[in-house]
Amino acid sequence: MTLDDIPSAAPSLARLIQELNKLPGIGPKSAQRLAYHIIRLPANEAYDLSEAIQMVQQKIVFCDECQNLTDKSPCNICSNPQRQRNLICAVEDPLDILALEKTRCYNGLYHVLHGAISPMSGIGPDQLKIKELFSRLSSRDITELILATNPTLEGEATSMYISRFLGSTNIKITHLARGIPIGGSLEYSDSLTLSRAFQGRQQF
Amino acid sequence: MTLDDIPSAAPSLARLIQELNKLPGIGPKSAQRLAYHIIRLPANEAYDLSEAIQMVQQKIVFCDECQNLTDKSPCNICSNPQRQRNLICAVEDPLDILALEKTRCYNGLYHVLHGAISPMSGIGPDQLKIKELFSRLSSRDITELILATNPTLEGEATSMYISRFLGSTNIKITHLARGIPIGGSLEYSDSLTLSRAFQGRQQF
Repeated sequence: MTLDDIPSAAPSLARLIQELNKLPGIGPKSAQRLAYHIIRLPANEAYDLSEAIQMVQQKIVFCDECQNLTDKSPCNICSNPQRQRNLICAVEDPLDILALEKTRCYNGLYHVLHGAISPMSGIGPDQLKIKELFSRLSSRDITELILATNPTLEGEATSMYISRFLGSTNIKITHLARGIPIGGSLEYSDSLTLSRAFQGRQQF
Repeated sequence: MTLDDIPSAAPSLARLIQELNKLPGIGPKSAQRLAYHIIRLPANEAYDLSEAIQMVQQKIVFCDECQNLTDKSPCNICSNPQRQRNLICAVEDPLDILALEKTRCYNGLYHVLHGAISPMSGIGPDQLKIKELFSRLSSRDITELILATNPTLEGEATSMYISRFLGSTNIKITHLARGIPIGGSLEYSDSLTLSRAFQGRQQF
């Protein structure tokens, strides 16, 4: 969307619509709606939003240990003495950590790979934080590495690469169970998911 | 969403997620996605977005004439000598003007009512910019008033109110045609739309 597409809007408004339209998942219509909402916000709320955007840019860094995004390195999780320091769960994305932490059923450390191997997009192991993972595994006393990449072609390839590379070490390597999601139905499950659910069936 | 729901995120990040989550149509998941996107933006782009938010708050005012949102009053449309000054198109919302301007088939002035009459929500004629419309109609040489409110119960009620109030004047009062939208199908049109399309049928 260019400024010419919104000729009747005031320049400062047109500019905000343009900036919002650049964000992922925000199309021209949503950008207009958001912009008109922001105009009507109380001044302090608009200021809070504006400042929060600048703050993350200034403050957020990579954690030296786990490569997660954090205000200070090492991050809250890596520096927490109550976490189990012999477990590492490798994920593709910082958002995955938020999702896993919400389950409250894992108390180890994480490692963010920042992507997955994807030859089609030109992303190989060197573009990911894989060597940082290997150096953590060799320098510390890790007993289990949980490969929690996404169950996609790229995610599986990344897990496969890491597990093959570590084949000779005596670290236990696991992956999250694949199966029918809670609330899902057999009827509408795809056959790949069903076949994985069969293979991974567990005793009652 | 509170800060407790995102315990593992860095504080500045958690705050941005919270602020984004307050915007309309942006749920917790979208807020997370957007926040992580904003972190990765080049510093100048994040700054542009942040500044654009503050700018609209500082600059946008109501146009004294048409009540549209603008950087300077009178607005671009009201101060444009090439617009027909004897036509006024009344709309509910500033966004409606953007939509109508894109058609490039109207060259008159506008009037933003900033809502529609809705007894259920406690919005009567006095909460809208209706008296401003009447004072424009009486003080200037207007020949036609196009009531372009939404074809909803509230929108129709608002148009009805305005047209009854002006019944005695000799200003021509019109409304936009109702009918089957282009690309729509008869089969899936609701019966109210179809009956309006029948009533408004035009000669080939």
